[in-house]
Amino acid sequence: MTTVVCRQLAPRVGEPAHNHQLILEAIATSGDADLLVLPELSSSGYVFRDAQEARSLALTSTSDAIGEWIGAVPEGMIVACGYAELGEDDRVYNSAMLFDRSGILANYRKVHLWDQEKRVFQAGQSAAPIVDTEWGRLGLMVCYDLEFPEYTRSAALRGADALVVPTNWPLVPRPDGERPPEVIIAQAAARTNKMPVICCDRSGAERGQDWTEGTTVIDHEGWVAGEADESGVARCELDLRAGRDKRVSEHNHLFDDRRPDLY
Amino acid sequence: MTTVVCRQLAPRVGEPAHNHQLILEAIATSGDADLLVLPELSSSGYVFRDAQEARSLALTSTSDAIGEWIGAVPEGMIVACGYAELGEDDRVYNSAMLFDRSGILANYRKVHLWDQEKRVFQAGQSAAPIVDTEWGRLGLMVCYDLEFPEYTRSAALRGADALVVPTNWPLVPRPDGERPPEVIIAQAAARTNKMPVICCDRSGAERGQDWTEGTTVIDHEGWVAGEADESGVARCELDLRAGRDKRVSEHNHLFDDRRPDLY
Repeated sequence: MTTVVCRQLAPRVGEPAHNHQLILEAIATSGDADLLVLPELSSSGYVFRDAQEARSLALTSTSDAIGEWIGAVPEGMIVACGYAELGEDDRVYNSAMLFDRSGILANYRKVHLWDQEKRVFQAGQSAAPIVDTEWGRLGLMVCYDLEFPEYTRSAALRGADALVVPTNWPLVPRPDGERPPEVIIAQAAARTNKMPVICCDRSGAERGQDWTEGTTVIDHEGWVAGEADESGVARCELDLRAGRDKRVSEHNHLFDDRRPDLY
Repeated sequence: MTTVVCRQLAPRVGEPAHNHQLILEAIATSGDADLLVLPELSSSGYVFRDAQEARSLALTSTSDAIGEWIGAVPEGMIVACGYAELGEDDRVYNSAMLFDRSGILANYRKVHLWDQEKRVFQAGQSAAPIVDTEWGRLGLMVCYDLEFPEYTRSAALRGADALVVPTNWPLVPRPDGERPPEVIIAQAAARTNKMPVICCDRSGAERGQDWTEGTTVIDHEGWVAGEADESGVARCELDLRAGRDKRVSEHNHLFDDRRPDLY
């Protein structure tokens, strides 16, 4: 079993030093986690005034700040964290990294950009990475990426045992008693692919934007295994490889049953 | 607005005359419905002993029984109904028809077969039909078909405004307070495609098999617009074209945002 911890941080846009400390504290206070997941754009905040502000808050993947995060990770822990990235091509990306004490395991640039992000970020040009780890093969994507079922499916087909998804979910209306729509979509992605989906949302209003605070860890059958408590921490034990065998009945296999000739 | 009615019938396997009457009564007692949806395999029942029993209960699409259903439909109503079909190729299919007073609008053979169905049915070789009606373009699929997100997506991309889905959902375990997994998957299909999904399940235990009785009408935002009452009837008013415009924010469009180069 893997000890999964999500910390629903409240970064502040335009206060990178504050956010840097939040990330370091999150790592330092999660010593029991095998896999620690932090929100999208943890280092920069989200509600940028314009492209220039986003650029000013972007980090290169070789920056000292990221080096400090890596240096803070205890032995045996893997961390996923979203950040604004200044690429070697001088473009700004909404990125997420998977790293451990040894360094960066994968760097991913969000492919599906939400709304105003299109004004400040460049869309990524590579599909979600799949990283073979001690805890299984982890796919990494960001927020709105999850809402494209062909994208989550393709990660599963490429061998992801579980998806790790830093998010910033803007609060949207929903009927009383319903889960956030993004969680329902994540549950369906988990169930239809037999693949756990781990979503770490953020908290803290930012320039008038409220957040869903919908952090949810979903197991390979699509059921909720963990949600954030009042302090914004979700913690659970999960077998991230539990859905590797895609058989779901005597005669059914989720992948072999597909009919790509008809899609 | 379209008046949608689902009737969660309890057909009995091996009693075609009984089931025929059930279908006729369902049509007769739904006079206010613009769209009436009945379960998968309404005419035959589901839990066949073997392929021979399924074959003995199959109807050709030109059979007198189906002619009677068509003759019973009032002016202005469209009906979706699942049945066991004996094809002109002498094979047996798990089919569904969309028909009105004028005749058959579409006949569909289930593509993704569940478990023991593979022993008794031939899989369909054509994708879900999309039928242009007074109430919008209706896509027709059956039960397990819905659990392939690339299939529901492809129906949306081919222009379906709404999906009509006769089902027989075998009861499976779920945590307290959760909707059936098939409903969660249908909600996600509706939300990610901005497309209502209308699922008519069945009731009545059959040879030891219990059913979910999970009939649910889902709107274009993925929310539940109607569920079966104690008598197994779901009735609601729904704009089946409400999700035709796929824009979901100032800068987002569910279809245009796709990145098929990466899937």
